[in-house]
Amino acid sequence: MTKSDSETVTLADYLFTRLQQLGVKSIFGVPGDYNLRLLDYVEPSGLHWVGTCNELNAAYAADGYARLAGLSAMITTFGVGELSAINGIAGAYAERAPVVHIVGTPPRPSQESRALVHHTFADGEYRRFAAMHAHVTIAQTNLNDPRTVPEQIDTVLQQALIHNRPVYIEIPDDMPGVLVSAANLTTNIQRPAAPTTAQESTVLTRIADRIYTAKQPLILVDGESRAIGILDEINNLVRQTSWPTFTTVSGKGLVDEHQPNVYGNYAGRLGDPKHKTYFDQADLILEFGLHATDTNTLGFQTLPNPATSITFTDKAVRIGDDTYRDLSPAFVTRLVQSLDFGRISKPTNPPQKTVIPTESLPPTGRITQKHFYRRVNSLLRPGDVVLTETGTASYGGRDFTLPTGTRLFGAITWLSIGYMLPATLGAALAQRELNPNTPTRAVLFIGDGSLQMTVQELSTIIREKLDVVIFLLNNEGYTIERAIHGRKQAYNDVARWRHHLAADFFGAEDGHGARNSFTANNWEELDAVLQQDAIQNGTGLRWVEVSMEKEDVEGLLRVILEKQIAAEKA
Amino acid sequence: MTKSDSETVTLADYLFTRLQQLGVKSIFGVPGDYNLRLLDYVEPSGLHWVGTCNELNAAYAADGYARLAGLSAMITTFGVGELSAINGIAGAYAERAPVVHIVGTPPRPSQESRALVHHTFADGEYRRFAAMHAHVTIAQTNLNDPRTVPEQIDTVLQQALIHNRPVYIEIPDDMPGVLVSAANLTTNIQRPAAPTTAQESTVLTRIADRIYTAKQPLILVDGESRAIGILDEINNLVRQTSWPTFTTVSGKGLVDEHQPNVYGNYAGRLGDPKHKTYFDQADLILEFGLHATDTNTLGFQTLPNPATSITFTDKAVRIGDDTYRDLSPAFVTRLVQSLDFGRISKPTNPPQKTVIPTESLPPTGRITQKHFYRRVNSLLRPGDVVLTETGTASYGGRDFTLPTGTRLFGAITWLSIGYMLPATLGAALAQRELNPNTPTRAVLFIGDGSLQMTVQELSTIIREKLDVVIFLLNNEGYTIERAIHGRKQAYNDVARWRHHLAADFFGAEDGHGARNSFTANNWEELDAVLQQDAIQNGTGLRWVEVSMEKEDVEGLLRVILEKQIAAEKA
Repeated sequence: MTKSDSETVTLADYLFTRLQQLGVKSIFGVPGDYNLRLLDYVEPSGLHWVGTCNELNAAYAADGYARLAGLSAMITTFGVGELSAINGIAGAYAERAPVVHIVGTPPRPSQESRALVHHTFADGEYRRFAAMHAHVTIAQTNLNDPRTVPEQIDTVLQQALIHNRPVYIEIPDDMPGVLVSAANLTTNIQRPAAPTTAQESTVLTRIADRIYTAKQPLILVDGESRAIGILDEINNLVRQTSWPTFTTVSGKGLVDEHQPNVYGNYAGRLGDPKHKTYFDQADLILEFGLHATDTNTLGFQTLPNPATSITFTDKAVRIGDDTYRDLSPAFVTRLVQSLDFGRISKPTNPPQKTVIPTESLPPTGRITQKHFYRRVNSLLRPGDVVLTETGTASYGGRDFTLPTGTRLFGAITWLSIGYMLPATLGAALAQRELNPNTPTRAVLFIGDGSLQMTVQELSTIIREKLDVVIFLLNNEGYTIERAIHGRKQAYNDVARWRHHLAADFFGAEDGHGARNSFTANNWEELDAVLQQDAIQNGTGLRWVEVSMEKEDVEGLLRVILEKQIAAEKA
Repeated sequence: MTKSDSETVTLADYLFTRLQQLGVKSIFGVPGDYNLRLLDYVEPSGLHWVGTCNELNAAYAADGYARLAGLSAMITTFGVGELSAINGIAGAYAERAPVVHIVGTPPRPSQESRALVHHTFADGEYRRFAAMHAHVTIAQTNLNDPRTVPEQIDTVLQQALIHNRPVYIEIPDDMPGVLVSAANLTTNIQRPAAPTTAQESTVLTRIADRIYTAKQPLILVDGESRAIGILDEINNLVRQTSWPTFTTVSGKGLVDEHQPNVYGNYAGRLGDPKHKTYFDQADLILEFGLHATDTNTLGFQTLPNPATSITFTDKAVRIGDDTYRDLSPAFVTRLVQSLDFGRISKPTNPPQKTVIPTESLPPTGRITQKHFYRRVNSLLRPGDVVLTETGTASYGGRDFTLPTGTRLFGAITWLSIGYMLPATLGAALAQRELNPNTPTRAVLFIGDGSLQMTVQELSTIIREKLDVVIFLLNNEGYTIERAIHGRKQAYNDVARWRHHLAADFFGAEDGHGARNSFTANNWEELDAVLQQDAIQNGTGLRWVEVSMEKEDVEGLLRVILEKQIAAEKA
């Protein structure tokens, strides 16, 4: 950083300074011909470079990092690298993770002369891959003119912050060392505040009136609450009202489940009937962070009745049929501050929490989905990041009672299997950086089919010396797909691997792989593994292969599977 | 197939019948929520389903298969699957592999109601991923109307054949079983013949005159010759003229290197000076299948002088400054047939072939790039497919003298590292299917950095019981990138794996992994490994880890590396 000398910095230093101002400490990616000169600036700038095994895994890792740290960055190379990553960027768009995708592109002379360089289609067209990224990012920019570079960078980074979605930055290979103005660096990039609209006090009053008069109210915390940035306000409201509070699939982990009025996931017809009755008869549902996809609403059946709901999204507040836009970002804060909690009624008939006594767990025999998650629940500690891959693990993870301060990654909408292992790398790294003085840990639950997609990133988890416990649920193939369709079809099988060799193959320190790899074929073995000091207190990668039945599914998956079996008999 | 009964077939049967008529016997892919109903038809149609570990690997495998079989197909699911594969589809576009990318999409009612289903961005927009594929495929179609399905399928498949490039087919999840007309199935899809243009005889005469008067001629075989489909004609011309014949990087393996007048790769300044002199002084260069990228022309320096060249591309014939378009596909056939070979001069001073005596190989010490490829050359047999991954392997592979009937895969233009391992799966499978009565084999040379990208597909090679020998060149990181830039930079390192565990980890039969995994740290060990019966005559996956120096590069890479070292000293 040469700013103090001359009021200019290199393009690379400008960008990496901006990222660090926004909390980014590590950057993911893969070297390639057109990004090497940019990579020269990464470590000298103070950022930690995390080379992943491939670019899709870098995108998944960056997504996991962004969901905890609030922003992340990754670097790929033109064409081959950026397109390998694009599915991960799309997932970050769909589920709101602000990933800055930086692409090293051919130098300006090549582009301007339409030279037929490698990583192109040999037709002189250089804009194709940027056009593809415009579909999956919220803002794009091409840093090919030093006069405008600072404003270009600031604009796209601000868009990432505003929308919690990925952005795309192209850097021609002859640009990283070019000098640009450092003037902007003295002020941080922030989410801009919209002016308070005239209607704002009316809306506050309407909502407060509904809150004061509610007799059977509830709070529903949905996943976009994280992106909107209102988690503190929601937790405050949940505590102060004591109103029954449920979460959606993607809202799980965003509100403290140890509070007496927090009931965990609302599952509609598939959950506790007492909860459904209360939900259906509610006269006010405060719904925060609506994300209305089939998977997040268990087939649209947990969406609240609009007539009794007040819904807070990133764009608007809906009260019945009325939609109010352009409210200030601090609207929810102001709402919570302005409430007179003394005027709020305790709900007349709050439902009981569902309590499943631990004694009901079967002590012996094959490990089952139904009981597995509650059995391992006691392993989880405050500050853990718990990741449950799409498949049986993500369904099962909804049963966890999460310790205070634990974050959960589940299957929301994009559901790209393979995501969760590299996301574990990114999340574990972010959590360690965010808590430099406390030991942190990630615990991943993943099926054998998902594992095969991105398995090599185990080696980066090992290389980065992250403290990660992985439960590999080996149910011999794509069990979630078997439940949906083709339960006996060979296309839902996967190749059999010798999973106990994983840590050694991917480079665990001598002896560490064998010492920290376990298998559990029944409850007794699982209990013994859970008692191991390596699992309870160990460090580095710990690995537990858990054997389960091929068609062992619960909840919605069980309903679908049974329909399939009934159709076969018909 | 219900055609004989009713003159209708299901959409899935129509498509799979068409693919089989065009020589496709296996289909690659990954199951997903929106393609399971389509997958139900794959194996009953007679196609073999090859489930890969992830979708990018499926695309790479399909690309490898298409380059041998002439067409290939793969199936992914909407959004997550198709975008994971898109970099492989782009490579197939860049280097001309006709891959049919079939995507199972949400059922029509979901799409038409813009339902917020999973694998979308929760915004009701369903056309985003097709728009992205339009950048990387030559034709696209969405099979959502049974009245036009047969023509839609036929049109895109014909485009794949004409252009040797990938195409994109969407099949909504409620469509595979819908009945469509079977009428078209009685005639095969073919590349259409353009009418003979009036200028054709003039062009033939101009070319023949140049051929008859040439004193120092040569033939240059470039990579697009494969896609144009003129390999038989070229080989015929090479035999009948006895003219000195060179290949480009991507032309390697397309012409029989055991003919006395075939000199192998032309390397310009980096090759034999006698060859360069002959090339520069040639009065006629017949250049077939021009592919003019930097990597295929060693930095544009092997492009022939346009004034003395006649260039045959898929679109036109260029004679000096004149370009003739719209010639019939059979134009080159007609040219070769019409020549009077008695009127063709033997070149006055053909250069000597470069012969490097085997005795010059060092007998002991560390294995070097310079000698490695000639040392293993004797292992190669007619009918092998030899695959050399981007990196030192692709440079070294240019030194092979290939047995007759051997095909080589090298680094041409897309250069997506990680491609070659799944491509080995696809190529080995295609070669086995094309030669059901002869044992066939694939031999892959790949570096440790590339391996990490797509390593899991070893398990599919094992599962499909393919006969594959893999030489893993372990030079501790991205050696090609070290040569280009940052030779001492940590970003060019990769994690260390225990490669000898690979076969066992990825599911080799008990005992097979250990018996067929070898390491070679010096020439003596390499010689011993090459003599092993498992390597010479074995079956299944054989695995040889070859240790090399970090900065051991040759040819163009050596030139670039030495520039870097010189710059460091300056």
